[in-house]
Amino acid sequence: MTSYTAPIKDMQFILQDVLQISKYSNLPGFADAPADVVEAILEEGAKFASNVLHPLNRSGDKEGCTRHPDGSVTTPKGFKEAYAVFREGGWQGLSADPEYGGQGLPSVIAMATSEMVTSANMAFGMYPGLARGAADTIHAHGTEEQKRAYLPKMISGEWSGTMNLTEPHCGTDLGLLKTRATPQADGTYKINGTKIFISAGEHDLTENIIHLVLARIEGAPEGVKGISLFIVPKFLVNPDGSLGARNGVSCGSIEEKMGIHANSTCVMNYDDATGYLIGEENKGLRAMFTMMNEARLGVAMQGMAISEVSYQNGAAYAKERLQGRALTGPVAPDKPADPIIVHPDVRRMLMDQRAFTEGARAWMYKAALAADLLHKSGDEEERRKADDYLGLMTPVLKSYLTEKGYWHATNAQQVLGGHGYIAEWGMEQFVRDARIAMIYEGANGIQALDLVGRKLMKDGGRAWQTYFAEIDEFIAENAGEEGLKPFLDGLASVKADLVEATQWMASNAMGDFNNAGASSMDYLQLFALVALAHIWAEMAKAALAKKAAGEADDFHEAKLITGRYFLDRVLPEAKAHLGKIKTGAKSMMALPAAAF
Amino acid sequence: MTSYTAPIKDMQFILQDVLQISKYSNLPGFADAPADVVEAILEEGAKFASNVLHPLNRSGDKEGCTRHPDGSVTTPKGFKEAYAVFREGGWQGLSADPEYGGQGLPSVIAMATSEMVTSANMAFGMYPGLARGAADTIHAHGTEEQKRAYLPKMISGEWSGTMNLTEPHCGTDLGLLKTRATPQADGTYKINGTKIFISAGEHDLTENIIHLVLARIEGAPEGVKGISLFIVPKFLVNPDGSLGARNGVSCGSIEEKMGIHANSTCVMNYDDATGYLIGEENKGLRAMFTMMNEARLGVAMQGMAISEVSYQNGAAYAKERLQGRALTGPVAPDKPADPIIVHPDVRRMLMDQRAFTEGARAWMYKAALAADLLHKSGDEEERRKADDYLGLMTPVLKSYLTEKGYWHATNAQQVLGGHGYIAEWGMEQFVRDARIAMIYEGANGIQALDLVGRKLMKDGGRAWQTYFAEIDEFIAENAGEEGLKPFLDGLASVKADLVEATQWMASNAMGDFNNAGASSMDYLQLFALVALAHIWAEMAKAALAKKAAGEADDFHEAKLITGRYFLDRVLPEAKAHLGKIKTGAKSMMALPAAAF
Repeated sequence: MTSYTAPIKDMQFILQDVLQISKYSNLPGFADAPADVVEAILEEGAKFASNVLHPLNRSGDKEGCTRHPDGSVTTPKGFKEAYAVFREGGWQGLSADPEYGGQGLPSVIAMATSEMVTSANMAFGMYPGLARGAADTIHAHGTEEQKRAYLPKMISGEWSGTMNLTEPHCGTDLGLLKTRATPQADGTYKINGTKIFISAGEHDLTENIIHLVLARIEGAPEGVKGISLFIVPKFLVNPDGSLGARNGVSCGSIEEKMGIHANSTCVMNYDDATGYLIGEENKGLRAMFTMMNEARLGVAMQGMAISEVSYQNGAAYAKERLQGRALTGPVAPDKPADPIIVHPDVRRMLMDQRAFTEGARAWMYKAALAADLLHKSGDEEERRKADDYLGLMTPVLKSYLTEKGYWHATNAQQVLGGHGYIAEWGMEQFVRDARIAMIYEGANGIQALDLVGRKLMKDGGRAWQTYFAEIDEFIAENAGEEGLKPFLDGLASVKADLVEATQWMASNAMGDFNNAGASSMDYLQLFALVALAHIWAEMAKAALAKKAAGEADDFHEAKLITGRYFLDRVLPEAKAHLGKIKTGAKSMMALPAAAF
Repeated sequence: MTSYTAPIKDMQFILQDVLQISKYSNLPGFADAPADVVEAILEEGAKFASNVLHPLNRSGDKEGCTRHPDGSVTTPKGFKEAYAVFREGGWQGLSADPEYGGQGLPSVIAMATSEMVTSANMAFGMYPGLARGAADTIHAHGTEEQKRAYLPKMISGEWSGTMNLTEPHCGTDLGLLKTRATPQADGTYKINGTKIFISAGEHDLTENIIHLVLARIEGAPEGVKGISLFIVPKFLVNPDGSLGARNGVSCGSIEEKMGIHANSTCVMNYDDATGYLIGEENKGLRAMFTMMNEARLGVAMQGMAISEVSYQNGAAYAKERLQGRALTGPVAPDKPADPIIVHPDVRRMLMDQRAFTEGARAWMYKAALAADLLHKSGDEEERRKADDYLGLMTPVLKSYLTEKGYWHATNAQQVLGGHGYIAEWGMEQFVRDARIAMIYEGANGIQALDLVGRKLMKDGGRAWQTYFAEIDEFIAENAGEEGLKPFLDGLASVKADLVEATQWMASNAMGDFNNAGASSMDYLQLFALVALAHIWAEMAKAALAKKAAGEADDFHEAKLITGRYFLDRVLPEAKAHLGKIKTGAKSMMALPAAAF
């Protein structure tokens, strides 16, 4: 009953008018993507998402994945065929290295097409999403031989990939992991152990699955300093590239879970499986973090993408469903009742969601552009700045976008009243699917700790200082713009709150680390509000420029109204976060554990 | 994998020390419930909830209800037997009128046992919960003959009941309803129409089901002024009380939904069913509101009850799961890692939930006591005050407790990380079950509109003026208590915010009703924070009194710490609500509907 239409106009507004990607045509790949080419790519992606993927979203949820007695797993009806279309469309290699068969386009464009795939069918999108992360890790840390062996088929989509971190007794605390790697005479390793919660661990979409597995080489140091990363293909790969023997890795069971039913979440058993060390011995965590950081951005995007599709369906219902009359008098007097979009509280839910989704999209794309600059810029300073920005924003994006994405999917469901609770209407699936994003790739609390415990401190605070200065500069540069004033005022006010919170952290966290931990989540959320106020000001500036140039239409008017709504109805949350932050850890930590 | 232990100590603290129900022993039923009798009742209820109901919670969710080709519905395995135990225990009639076989105990005690049933198994609790609402409606609006015919068997639990409002095209806007009632020569009516979302509409727990059905008598006025209420039993009742012919009401299908799978949500078809008018012709809505208001309190309780059980299981996991080390140094150096309850952000989630649940429970019970006073007090002024309090608080309780209950169930799920997403662990069911409470018995947005559109205005604002004065009085009376000072300061501050918001509403809503609608939900939430700050201050006062009397123990210390946490970490939200309220409707209503 749901539908999805890719928001191409908003995507292009962000890419062309806000981020102005045409400015980067000196960088590899950007010259191949002028606005009209981007438009064509987005339109193709939109068709695939709406016509092929979205119709499988509810049926895939209902059917789920099936594990057979031989350990093989089949995806829901239609997934294989849809994946074939995806592969043939070349979507998997859109931004991958041309050296290994990729198209080398900017990753900010791949972010837009990934968003479409995720909005249309999040469980489907996870298969290629994880494969992309695995390929990027091999690209960053593999030997040339490993790259030649795996990347072309992973980039073409013929093979997929996974990441294997979690074990039954350890998730966040990887230092506890027990999976063993035993060195063999031929330089390979035998991998033994059990991994859990492995998304896309086994399925029937690709002919091979390349698992990246964290394990401890026999005799390695305890804790996180003794962890190495291994490539463990489902089928070994012959020197000529053809598939060899079946490796000792198998799916022991698939989990019954709240949502993303069409993605197989596997218990993976490694039983004398042949593994190939990737990167340095005992430096596995560092290599895995390449994958993890990218995956975290991908998960942040999921929060935004589910918010988008649930917004579309909530709004469509609100425009059709007749119930009650507007408080200010009938709007549709010829009908038995007015459409419920006339009711302010219905609007509140939709506008909240709209303000979130549009801001989140622009912020996400800005981060994706930073990833492009980090990898492609010839200017060291620009690369460093992009790296700082990404490091700082990744935990904030991951945590804030997934929490609000879930919350807004819940609000979109609320718009439908009782129908929202009924499976047939499809809204409750968005909520169940969105829920996982707050948990995986580092639960949101871990993101907050990463922000205050590592990212703020790193390089003497260079990243946040640079970012704060960038905001001040933006405000100063645009101070004369009358139309922009409310946006600049809002940004300045929330940034002042963040400065105050940062000073509080600096003064109070050193004496008691629990103060930092206790206020980490509110600090992260305040940080997110600053980033959103910033991107909303940047969007407003772009929309006002369109107006000044006589090129504005309803879209730009709506953008400015939504931005004003963000200032009115979202930014006031900053004061609550600041108030909470400054109370510190005292009452939070006072109860003895036994009292819980 | 989940467990439930009824929080008897907290319940008794609220009943005996905070609300001091022993003060009301002059009222019918209260004298029969001294503290030791209450303790015995709660202990019996707790055993039943933990040992009989909770073990069926997950299996009931998994199996769901089954509709058979003949239209009959079976509940999940074990439900029939559990219901028999419930019925034999006399739980259904605990606070019902002794005139018709009830035990006549205070409803505030029945609220506590209902909470236990709901925490243990919400889907089960809905069967007797709806029956109770139906019985109360017959008690309030039925003729003596109708009361004699239905109440004894409904109060004994032999028969159940339902409420039938919603139709496919109308939920909130009952004026649109189409179900017809055709008068017959014998004074009965033939009922024809279709009702949807009928909880417990058909099942195998009781031998008869008494449906209360809203319908329009032929020739009645359009809209809400032409709606009447009818009793439509599944089996007609013979004059001697035995079951007669099967009536023309049947379950057409059961809905596949997000949660509460063990409760049958039915499409009910009325096909020349015999119905008996209850109350006056065309005054059906008023009668139905008796049921609705009570049901709204019951739904509010569901939010709190699910928060309680999910808190218990989140806390148990946090005390056991070893992962990482405390920021301030190892707490369990002999173990491979510390239990995750050492991490501040895990505590934040648990303390948030604890502060909510304990405050919500006390507030709920206070409302239940008001219901007792309304029905039993001999003092007109006391009855009026109780009525005002209930009318004012019902929408606030319903909306705030269900929203936060859902949110906190989500947080408890978050404490378990990946395991929280897996069905086997049971946490995700709490979230799915809790979700419905924000929707049914009037979606939360409707509650906000009820508060600002009706309850604030009623009787010239007497209800809120009385309540505000009560708070001022409480603060003045206790001003000398040193230990209470932070609670009184917090209460005074948030109450000042609410006064400001109320003044804003008064000044701005008349000129543009959309201003009231636009700010209604934030106003409701600010109102809830005041009510919670008030009840927390009352609880702190009771705990301090115990300390002063040398009767305090760890429970009272924990209560005071949790109260301080509420002041530190929940109350700051008031400023955000106030900030949003004062922005009004402008940016919320500016977009044309087509732009959504």
